[in-house]
Amino acid sequence: ALVALMDPLHPADIADLLEQVNAFDRTRLIRLYGREFDGEILSELDESIREEVIAALSPAVLADAVRELDSDDVVDLLEDLEEPQQEAILDALDDDDRAVVEQSLSYPEYSAGRLMQREVVMAPEHWTVGDAIDFLRTAENLPEQFYHVTLVDPRMRPVANVTLGKLMASPRAVPLADITEDTFHKIDVLQDEADVAYAFNQYHLISAPVIDADERLVGQITIDDAMAVLDEEHEEDILRLAGVGEESSLSDNVVDTTRQRLPWLGVNLVTAILASLVIAQFEAAIAQVVALAVLMPIVASMGGNAGTQSLTVAVRALATKDLTGANVWRVIRRECLVGLINGVVFAVVMGIVGVIWFGSPALGYVIAAAMVVNLVVAGLAGTGIPIVLEKLGIDPALASGAFVTTVTDVVGFFAFLGLAVIVLL
Amino acid sequence: ALVALMDPLHPADIADLLEQVNAFDRTRLIRLYGREFDGEILSELDESIREEVIAALSPAVLADAVRELDSDDVVDLLEDLEEPQQEAILDALDDDDRAVVEQSLSYPEYSAGRLMQREVVMAPEHWTVGDAIDFLRTAENLPEQFYHVTLVDPRMRPVANVTLGKLMASPRAVPLADITEDTFHKIDVLQDEADVAYAFNQYHLISAPVIDADERLVGQITIDDAMAVLDEEHEEDILRLAGVGEESSLSDNVVDTTRQRLPWLGVNLVTAILASLVIAQFEAAIAQVVALAVLMPIVASMGGNAGTQSLTVAVRALATKDLTGANVWRVIRRECLVGLINGVVFAVVMGIVGVIWFGSPALGYVIAAAMVVNLVVAGLAGTGIPIVLEKLGIDPALASGAFVTTVTDVVGFFAFLGLAVIVLL
Ligand SMILES: [Mg+2]
Ligand SMILES: [Mg+2]
Ligand SMILES: [Mg+2]
Ligand SMILES: [Mg+2]
Ligand SMILES: [Mg+2]
Ligand SMILES: [Mg+2]
Ligand SMILES: [Mg+2]
Ligand SMILES: [Mg+2]
Ligand SMILES: [Mg+2]
Ligand SMILES: [Mg+2]
Ligand SMILES: [Mg+2]
Ligand SMILES: [Mg+2]
Ligand SMILES: [Mg+2]
Repeated sequence: ALVALMDPLHPADIADLLEQVNAFDRTRLIRLYGREFDGEILSELDESIREEVIAALSPAVLADAVRELDSDDVVDLLEDLEEPQQEAILDALDDDDRAVVEQSLSYPEYSAGRLMQREVVMAPEHWTVGDAIDFLRTAENLPEQFYHVTLVDPRMRPVANVTLGKLMASPRAVPLADITEDTFHKIDVLQDEADVAYAFNQYHLISAPVIDADERLVGQITIDDAMAVLDEEHEEDILRLAGVGEESSLSDNVVDTTRQRLPWLGVNLVTAILASLVIAQFEAAIAQVVALAVLMPIVASMGGNAGTQSLTVAVRALATKDLTGANVWRVIRRECLVGLINGVVFAVVMGIVGVIWFGSPALGYVIAAAMVVNLVVAGLAGTGIPIVLEKLGIDPALASGAFVTTVTDVVGFFAFLGLAVIVLL
Repeated sequence: ALVALMDPLHPADIADLLEQVNAFDRTRLIRLYGREFDGEILSELDESIREEVIAALSPAVLADAVRELDSDDVVDLLEDLEEPQQEAILDALDDDDRAVVEQSLSYPEYSAGRLMQREVVMAPEHWTVGDAIDFLRTAENLPEQFYHVTLVDPRMRPVANVTLGKLMASPRAVPLADITEDTFHKIDVLQDEADVAYAFNQYHLISAPVIDADERLVGQITIDDAMAVLDEEHEEDILRLAGVGEESSLSDNVVDTTRQRLPWLGVNLVTAILASLVIAQFEAAIAQVVALAVLMPIVASMGGNAGTQSLTVAVRALATKDLTGANVWRVIRRECLVGLINGVVFAVVMGIVGVIWFGSPALGYVIAAAMVVNLVVAGLAGTGIPIVLEKLGIDPALASGAFVTTVTDVVGFFAFLGLAVIVLL
């Protein structure tokens, strides 16, 4: 009955269902579902439980499941598996498919070569619409989904795309070369998949040919796979910005989750201790004026928040290639100015709060001045640090947060307590 | 010469170029580019400078630019413009196009109705492959890009999609009904665009028919537009999580940017003052043991970071519909357990640091215990708060951060200072 209920579900929804139940129910579901298991469910499953599900399938069922898949989906399935499971799946493929898959696996992880499918519909550049239609009518083994015929020159270099819509709407005698698409974007087989996703989004590509170092056609990437990469890249950024391992998933267990989170909390502990060392320099002042201890977290917290605002905007703009050499100085200047204005606004507010709360105008001046300093520094650090990390080839999403909050904590405590010593004591 | 340089650029790249130069150069570039301005550049431009660019174009150039666009792109252009500019563009369209665009604009913002294009290629469900091909050959006004023929019943309700690839590869006598695609997903015209993007990504859709309340076909959405929405939704989430207005853009000026950031810093100031009020309750204890002031930010900071980790995972999982009623309790339990384990690890570390630094085992116990408490609370609040906000219909990306850090600050200071009073004094 359960299987009957699941039958009309899309493989992606079945995969989500398997991810959301616990491990015990998962194994039972798979057993019930049993003798036939759609290969696409495996493609859609989160990597963290794929191995578990594959292990629960009998070799015969697994072989059937894998044989239905396009080459790109088999590659995606294989790349994260351990050696013995990889072998089991490769053995299930026939020799041609196996060779194609192994070739894709020879390209580096996260490259266009891993993402592409080998199945491409192509035609010589001198063909007419009629030639192409006759070919398509008689061709066997056309891919399940294709949207373009790619024109190639005699050396197998792609020169243009013709959409199927144009092909159908044109008279037979028209040369294909006359109805090619305006936008034609070739992708290098070694290009990073994040740049591939960017190009699809930027140029509204539906499919794009992948070329090797000799500019020869080796495969194609389709937009559905580029969209999935865009989604993953975003997930990676958002999780990295929060100091969560980007491989994290809701179906991870307690131990794996702890292991992912611990290092970042460790980094944060070091930076927090650093800030504490700054405070320790001012123990004498705090002992005299305890109000300093009460107010100091406010300056640090405001700086941390303003810095996070700037750094998030910068990280995102770097990812979308909107922050470039052409506007970097204008953006840095803007962030510092915004910090200055916000700093002045909150300086006035906190100055008043300080006076009312503690009855000390001098304390009011001190917190106001420290606020201005820290918010300008937050704008500068929040923009500058991601840019410098990007230049150094480090993912700004990964490391900016720790650096920026260290800067705003240290500067915040130092400016506030330092000024207090000068003005109050 | 500059125009010649820009000519081979894709409209999306020209738009990026215009975004990255300053306002003065922008106006000069537009004047130079002058008499012919590709409508797609306008579509690609960031909303923050669209008005400025449109105002710089002469009415005749603007009219030419807009007439080339698909209906969905015109709608996207119009919806963010002021009344007079809207009128100018609507007037440039011929009557049919204008009616179509105005109909789309009658649907709510961010709905599928705003995202869809009205141009759809459809066929009666009883047609054969031959009928469809003959129709496509003679049809005028086919859309620039289309990938499916949508089959409709006599009451204009879509029943299935046939891919152009299948159409080309099948003999003329085959009924279209025999070669329809397995995955067929209809979209309600009032559905939120974020859910539309989710469906495209989840089901690998290339295009999908949009239906009204009577299930009649009113338009279609294509994956390139769904991909753009997915990208925008991510941008919204990442900026909201950082407390930056999601309408923010790199080309915004200082005043607009300050205005976006200020409210969130204001919220943060209130929560920081709340935390300070907690500290103020313990002024006497701090005056006696200044080490408390040195160490207290560490407990709060670790809680804030752990809470941010949990909340980011929860916000992301809610957005991808991976966190549901089926696994919510398992996830909350996991996050609390992770908090407990990390809490114990860092409790031991900080206990030792406390003893070595200040030579006081009692201080070590206090900070250790406070760390455990705050990290468990961080796991609970970091997961629970986004879930509750989502239930209340508030975007968890928008408000979770302020709530969670308030909780971890207040609990962190209270647990540490409160325990210190009990144990040390
Ligand atoms: Mg899924
Ligand atoms: Mg999933
Ligand atoms: Mg696929
Ligand atoms: Mg992969
Ligand atoms: Mg990547
Ligand atoms: Mg694919
Ligand atoms: Mg990245
Ligand atoms: Mg752009
Ligand atoms: Mg842009
Ligand atoms: Mg829009
Ligand atoms: Mg939205
Ligand atoms: Mg469109
Ligand atoms: Mg959202």
